[in-house]
Amino acid sequence: MAAATTKRISVPCIKLKTYMQQGFINICRLKIDDSMEDRYDKLMAVCLKRGLFYPSSEIHNGPAGFFDYGSIGTKIKRNWENYWRYYFLKELDEPFFEIDASTIMPEGVFKASGHLTDFVDPIAKCEKCGFSEKANQIIEEELKESYEGMTPKELDELIKKHNIKCPKCGGRFKEVGVLGMMFGFTIGEDYKGYLRPETAQGSYVSFKREYAVNREKLPFGLAIIGRAYRNEISPRQGLFRMREFTQAELQVFFDHAAIDSHPRFSEVAKAEVTVVLAKERKKGEQKLSIAELHKHGYPKMYLYYMARIKEFYDTMGLSIRFFEKSDEERAFYNKYQFDGEIHFPSFQKHIEVLGLHYRTDHDLAGHQKVSKQDLTVTRDGKKILAHVIELSFGVDRNVLALLDNGFKSDSKRTYIHLPKRIAPYIAGVYPLVNKDGIDDKARAIFDMLKKRFEIFYDDGGSIGRRYARADEIGIYYGITVDYDSLKNEDVTIRDIETTKQVRKKIEDLPESLDM
Amino acid sequence: MAAATTKRISVPCIKLKTYMQQGFINICRLKIDDSMEDRYDKLMAVCLKRGLFYPSSEIHNGPAGFFDYGSIGTKIKRNWENYWRYYFLKELDEPFFEIDASTIMPEGVFKASGHLTDFVDPIAKCEKCGFSEKANQIIEEELKESYEGMTPKELDELIKKHNIKCPKCGGRFKEVGVLGMMFGFTIGEDYKGYLRPETAQGSYVSFKREYAVNREKLPFGLAIIGRAYRNEISPRQGLFRMREFTQAELQVFFDHAAIDSHPRFSEVAKAEVTVVLAKERKKGEQKLSIAELHKHGYPKMYLYYMARIKEFYDTMGLSIRFFEKSDEERAFYNKYQFDGEIHFPSFQKHIEVLGLHYRTDHDLAGHQKVSKQDLTVTRDGKKILAHVIELSFGVDRNVLALLDNGFKSDSKRTYIHLPKRIAPYIAGVYPLVNKDGIDDKARAIFDMLKKRFEIFYDDGGSIGRRYARADEIGIYYGITVDYDSLKNEDVTIRDIETTKQVRKKIEDLPESLDM
Repeated sequence: MAAATTKRISVPCIKLKTYMQQGFINICRLKIDDSMEDRYDKLMAVCLKRGLFYPSSEIHNGPAGFFDYGSIGTKIKRNWENYWRYYFLKELDEPFFEIDASTIMPEGVFKASGHLTDFVDPIAKCEKCGFSEKANQIIEEELKESYEGMTPKELDELIKKHNIKCPKCGGRFKEVGVLGMMFGFTIGEDYKGYLRPETAQGSYVSFKREYAVNREKLPFGLAIIGRAYRNEISPRQGLFRMREFTQAELQVFFDHAAIDSHPRFSEVAKAEVTVVLAKERKKGEQKLSIAELHKHGYPKMYLYYMARIKEFYDTMGLSIRFFEKSDEERAFYNKYQFDGEIHFPSFQKHIEVLGLHYRTDHDLAGHQKVSKQDLTVTRDGKKILAHVIELSFGVDRNVLALLDNGFKSDSKRTYIHLPKRIAPYIAGVYPLVNKDGIDDKARAIFDMLKKRFEIFYDDGGSIGRRYARADEIGIYYGITVDYDSLKNEDVTIRDIETTKQVRKKIEDLPESLDM
Repeated sequence: MAAATTKRISVPCIKLKTYMQQGFINICRLKIDDSMEDRYDKLMAVCLKRGLFYPSSEIHNGPAGFFDYGSIGTKIKRNWENYWRYYFLKELDEPFFEIDASTIMPEGVFKASGHLTDFVDPIAKCEKCGFSEKANQIIEEELKESYEGMTPKELDELIKKHNIKCPKCGGRFKEVGVLGMMFGFTIGEDYKGYLRPETAQGSYVSFKREYAVNREKLPFGLAIIGRAYRNEISPRQGLFRMREFTQAELQVFFDHAAIDSHPRFSEVAKAEVTVVLAKERKKGEQKLSIAELHKHGYPKMYLYYMARIKEFYDTMGLSIRFFEKSDEERAFYNKYQFDGEIHFPSFQKHIEVLGLHYRTDHDLAGHQKVSKQDLTVTRDGKKILAHVIELSFGVDRNVLALLDNGFKSDSKRTYIHLPKRIAPYIAGVYPLVNKDGIDDKARAIFDMLKKRFEIFYDDGGSIGRRYARADEIGIYYGITVDYDSLKNEDVTIRDIETTKQVRKKIEDLPESLDM
């Protein structure tokens, strides 16, 4: 299973409720200013106010762990997904294809993947007040140390040994039990099915068919961008730990014999990446070239994708750090496992947004065994099981990483500076006044641009207020149409980051808006 | 609830199993020729062979009613979704926004919508062999008449009256019971949740928040493109009746006082649409102008969207027919309900692919009542509940409508002629031979085009075989690079429909590929 989103991070609970209690309309009129001390709270307030996202089924007091992307957030999320799709499936120029697999899968799939038995949370439940929480989380909060990967029995012993009590009522905990993390139900009258806890399984079960469609060549890759579901016991951390979330996962299937090669390795050999190596964790962050990492023993194919992932983030102005999991921390079937982490200014720490996993033939071997179907392919006269390198991205966390890194708020201005290709609208068009033909001119510019670009039109309120609104949702450029525009066929174009305004000919606008 | 996909249609069961039993590789080598008599079987064989779609979790014998889109099908489906998004949310130039809502929703939502009590299938189960089927379906197959919308009790009486027996074993049926059609499960430890049976509810529960984000204006629209789930008792009809499927639904919220107006109504008044009116069903299909339909009493806002939907299909070369449901057939809360139907050549009949529903204030009233939240808005000093016109499209059925209408197969050739904007690749690039610099030239052309277009590269086998492969997946143009290309900087470009080849300058290719 993808480690990308199983790891727990400790971030402050967002205070959405506080804002929500102010009612729907009030939140939209909320003034984001210095009276809000916490940076992340401020960002969340902007997100709610401007419809980036909000709790699902809010009016019905929906359960925690579900968020809807609103009209603005959906554009940002889609842009991220489309850019991921473009970069990994097209720009890399490999036989990588997207498939769109069912989110409901039968029991056999999760027998084969191990989720049925292993994908469980160790739960500590208070005898007195009934409060439940993941056992390792309770211990971690008490002892301030990480207890990932321990068995329920080991966790139970720790609770007893340190006499840890319920944080709510001081009561004693029952023996640590387990809770299955998949949503299961009956299909038809008697067929057991589950919502997939990761998109990856959809690629594994379709491997043989797509291998045939792709004319029996290796390597090839299958990507799925879609929903995954985990029945988290305590999804308290907003977009970080949701029960329904979106993944973008790419499974690269290859002949194991080719692991230490990639036809384009030389292109990336000199690239530098920031890593924290498991064996040298005390050294902390290191900048190493891909070639140096190869000398450390990591194979070329794995490193090739590490370099490309770094490039992907570079193009969005984010710097990614690869944090290697130790033997105890990584999933047993992952021969190599690095988390890709982004620094979140609001939390002053790095948070995992992706995983890069060399999963060996674990997946196909499991599915072959349980399904009793032959999943081998013939290479050079020999039957082999394809190996897998997985690139597993949490879409929601990536969106949040961009929002948090782009968010600036001080006494003068609040804005979210997103990469051009991620911004919900590349430009807003604003008539200075709604008369004297200026509105018609603005409309004509809007009509000209909207075919090729995502453009926002706003003619309400002062120009200053329109800029402020646009800043809060990350509209990249502001195009203002004024009296001079009528005479000179030009407009002012304002950059969200610098607020600098320059005069541009209307006919040159498409070129200015291009990436 | 959206009628679009609840209606049962009777089409032959596809013979996927027959092909599947030939094994993965064999199906991909399957020759599609005249030995297959049934047109739809042939199309399905092409879809399997070329990876358009296939049964989900196939190697684990996944349950019926789930299909995965493969590498080719996913492109077609995405193109349809993107075009729908472009047409309805951008081209129409109204304040219509996409949101991305959770697919899991709490019980309150479906209390409010009525699904919890009303979204059930009447089930007839054989006492002897245990065979289950929808009761109305069993009766319909026996009596060759439609029994939609009857209560379980009425259906039970019909079975008894006509002494209808189990079609499998001749046994008697038990009393008709009901089976809830939603997939339900527990969230966390004790919160009841369901997979949404339609995307629409996500828009209704977010209405108030998006109303605020959109500065308290009416009308505005919320669209969701995403999964919906229905626990069908007998999903035997391939892509037509799935348990997990994709919808594209647009909810237009408006002030009821404006129902008989649309600012751009005059643009569509003269447009002619093909309709079957409920009151004049005996007349069959009629071609009526939108203005004439207005005289029949249908309000302008409703008709405006009917005209735009027709335009949408016109641009894809499909002709849509609007079939009005009678008072008995339509959902009680739909004041007007037309199914949009496309003719499927394989079945020689019209099949529903969308619904256009005037739902009044049914939805917001229901959610207001159950949630106890005030969902009214203030218009001209009065508190009102917004009314809703719903445009509800079944994405999978629309994809299938395009495939079936584009499919041609005779002794000479098998191809799928899709609209340019829907084709998985707009062009394939084929070097005549892989030497003498022709391959390099072909690569250079591919590299030039791929940034702006979806382009396929194929250098395997004879040109004839490459064309045949491309034809079966609907690649629109074939670009062949030959010895003359090196001298004259030109290529042949072949059209999938006519197979006509013309010579084009390489530099003019981007223009030729544009829509």
